[in-house]
Amino acid sequence: MDAIEAILSRRVQRAFAPTPVESEKLLQIVEAGRHAMSARNLQPWQFIVVQNRERLNEMGGLCITGRFVAECPAAIVVLKDNSNTRWAAVDCAQAVQNMANAGWALGLGTCWVGNFEAQKLGELLGVPVEWSIFTILPFGYPDPAKPPQGKPLKSRREMVHYEMYGNPKPN
Amino acid sequence: MDAIEAILSRRVQRAFAPTPVESEKLLQIVEAGRHAMSARNLQPWQFIVVQNRERLNEMGGLCITGRFVAECPAAIVVLKDNSNTRWAAVDCAQAVQNMANAGWALGLGTCWVGNFEAQKLGELLGVPVEWSIFTILPFGYPDPAKPPQGKPLKSRREMVHYEMYGNPKPN
Repeated sequence: MDAIEAILSRRVQRAFAPTPVESEKLLQIVEAGRHAMSARNLQPWQFIVVQNRERLNEMGGLCITGRFVAECPAAIVVLKDNSNTRWAAVDCAQAVQNMANAGWALGLGTCWVGNFEAQKLGELLGVPVEWSIFTILPFGYPDPAKPPQGKPLKSRREMVHYEMYGNPKPN
Repeated sequence: MDAIEAILSRRVQRAFAPTPVESEKLLQIVEAGRHAMSARNLQPWQFIVVQNRERLNEMGGLCITGRFVAECPAAIVVLKDNSNTRWAAVDCAQAVQNMANAGWALGLGTCWVGNFEAQKLGELLGVPVEWSIFTILPFGYPDPAKPPQGKPLKSRREMVHYEMYGNPKPN
């Protein structure tokens, strides 16, 4: 898929077909995350690829919003370096956007899940104290009965300025 | 350019050819930012497109690191909503990653410039107090004499785990 088409056509997806996700595709998604920008190139992230049905069920049970994680065929958990406090969240977010775009280009949807019982989830996944769980990204093919949601975006006019704030047209 | 190729091949660029950047391409880059993910779809960003030579020079003079902004043919300034403190930075970072990828797919490089005299820059660009300057993204074609830098990445082995933290191989 074309790079710009992937960015513009991506939608949030919360309902997944039961079709398994190819391990090779999950690896391509992780590679996309690994190639994100990061401040001073510190790459303050780690990724846990989860495909075990029982573990995904348990993870879903620990999500406060995003219980649909229990029904996804695969998930990638993004960990954030706790020692790199200034920019780590911003850097991890860039990895997430890259992974969402790469997944979409491979036919897979995802949704940012960030509200969970962090301590229990960390225990389930064996996450050391030097890292915190930044987000869970469930991945799967769209459920044909519940296609990805289009989200209403603010218009370009509401957010683009030229040369100075408040100037809506190119000079 | 293919979506995944754009993500994997992107490099940081700090030296630009003097070739002007087409306004249409800058608009495509802004569109990529507009289509980033954001928490609760709040889209807490604004973009200022700058192509005026004199203004770019002034902006470069206000950058503490990133004075090369003075030599870029165009820049996009990303503003962050100050009223949306929990997730705004993370959301803006996702817009930045999308814009860097889209620019790269269009033949343009960029570099995250985040260290500047914020108050003076805000006055120069007329930024209201409700917004803060998140980053300046200079955009331009590569200077043939200074091609984009490859950055050393940690190996996949150092950051990918399967099912549990510390498990380096798929089960």
